[in-house]
Amino acid sequence: MRYALGLEYDGRAFCGWQAQPSGRGVQNAVQRAVSAIAGHPVMVTCAGRTDAGVHATAQVVHFDTGSERPDTAWTRGVNTWLQEGISVLWSRRVADSFHARYEALSRSYRYILLERRSRPGLHHGRVGWWPTPLDVPAMAVAAGALLGTHDFSTFRAAECQARSPVRTMLHLEVRREGEFIEFDLRANAFLHHMVRNIVGSLVQVGAGRRTPEWIAGILAARNRQAGAPTFAADGLYLAGVEYDPAHGIPAFPDSALSPAPVRRPAVDDPAPLA
Amino acid sequence: MRYALGLEYDGRAFCGWQAQPSGRGVQNAVQRAVSAIAGHPVMVTCAGRTDAGVHATAQVVHFDTGSERPDTAWTRGVNTWLQEGISVLWSRRVADSFHARYEALSRSYRYILLERRSRPGLHHGRVGWWPTPLDVPAMAVAAGALLGTHDFSTFRAAECQARSPVRTMLHLEVRREGEFIEFDLRANAFLHHMVRNIVGSLVQVGAGRRTPEWIAGILAARNRQAGAPTFAADGLYLAGVEYDPAHGIPAFPDSALSPAPVRRPAVDDPAPLA
Repeated sequence: MRYALGLEYDGRAFCGWQAQPSGRGVQNAVQRAVSAIAGHPVMVTCAGRTDAGVHATAQVVHFDTGSERPDTAWTRGVNTWLQEGISVLWSRRVADSFHARYEALSRSYRYILLERRSRPGLHHGRVGWWPTPLDVPAMAVAAGALLGTHDFSTFRAAECQARSPVRTMLHLEVRREGEFIEFDLRANAFLHHMVRNIVGSLVQVGAGRRTPEWIAGILAARNRQAGAPTFAADGLYLAGVEYDPAHGIPAFPDSALSPAPVRRPAVDDPAPLA
Repeated sequence: MRYALGLEYDGRAFCGWQAQPSGRGVQNAVQRAVSAIAGHPVMVTCAGRTDAGVHATAQVVHFDTGSERPDTAWTRGVNTWLQEGISVLWSRRVADSFHARYEALSRSYRYILLERRSRPGLHHGRVGWWPTPLDVPAMAVAAGALLGTHDFSTFRAAECQARSPVRTMLHLEVRREGEFIEFDLRANAFLHHMVRNIVGSLVQVGAGRRTPEWIAGILAARNRQAGAPTFAADGLYLAGVEYDPAHGIPAFPDSALSPAPVRRPAVDDPAPLA
């Protein structure tokens, strides 16, 4: 029998998705917990292999087991075996033909950047940081050049193991939420460090060091040297994986779609007491 | 000369505000960092002494020094001496008569509760948790009984050192933001564990175990035994301290007013690729 699980995690608790000899990969933790419930060693495959320090609000994984368990065993039961900073949000029996990675039609990532003079304190490790004002409309214009199907070699890490550098960017939005700037990206798949490299280059435009047209130019160069340095992992969230609805993969709850603290509350008038 | 600083911090990085022999109080950290910049030992006094695990988006402190330093020394300079998870957001020279604690007219706290079946993963330690549906309108009605000036002994920890249990609740709002429930409270001052005890009792109403009228009854009982257990520190944020504008205390930036991840993003249609 094949099962899919939906997970959220704080990337700081782990050394990235991939199983490590240290045992500190997200994969190690999930495999340990699922194996404990299944009563036999279980291999877990994910939709998007997040790097060290990268968070997920909507990671999808699958595994095979012959063990019959009540539904709650694969959610609450697995959670009791998991450390802090990770939670199984749902589980679902799926067809044996389902594959978390190969059946994914697209992935969505969000990058959250705190733009203010002082460094992140409360949100340390959960947001990127830029200390001077950024021109969000300029970044949004520049981002338009990345939509569609391109060779993204300029935004690809040297260690990337993908066979092809061609990807299709389906959605790329940049918007301000108070002092946070959010970058929402959706593509059929992403190259290694692709989001962080795109954010790094867009920030150069936002800071006025480059024109919006520069992005189209470096994309055409198909050369990592043409782009800006990789941005920090801290603000990056795997925020969605999309499948054919025929697979019956559940939606994530609202909370899982809220990767970081962005809403200014409706503060009542803080005037002194009458 | 007297200076005021505005701070935000993640309460998990510390053992509460109060200086500890272990050196792990927020006060220890701030005193070490400010002393390093001032070049002499500095005592720091805060507006609201947060407990272990309680966060702050808007803590105000003051200290005295004879050392002349450029403005940025008390913000960026102090930050270089502070560990991760805390940040000085602003500094301001104030009158010698200013006192962060005694001159505060009121304090604002926010409690953020995640209401969903699965435990917090990404937001572990930053939100409280309740696994079953809560009736927010019922909690809002019940909260009305706490507005105004009352003896809050029912919501006061046994260890509370305040001389009087009488406090004036100026604002108490309960609202839903997706799967998060936010409690915003403002009072002239708070007793030890007062917010966590109020949230614990309101949740009994929200869960349908008590009627909204029960809150007025336990308040009138003036007896801690009448109330519900203290709720977890995890979801509690010191979110504002209000002073007479004549003191010239700066406003906190937007980001400091956003204690936790609550906004559902504008997700574009995650339909499969055409």
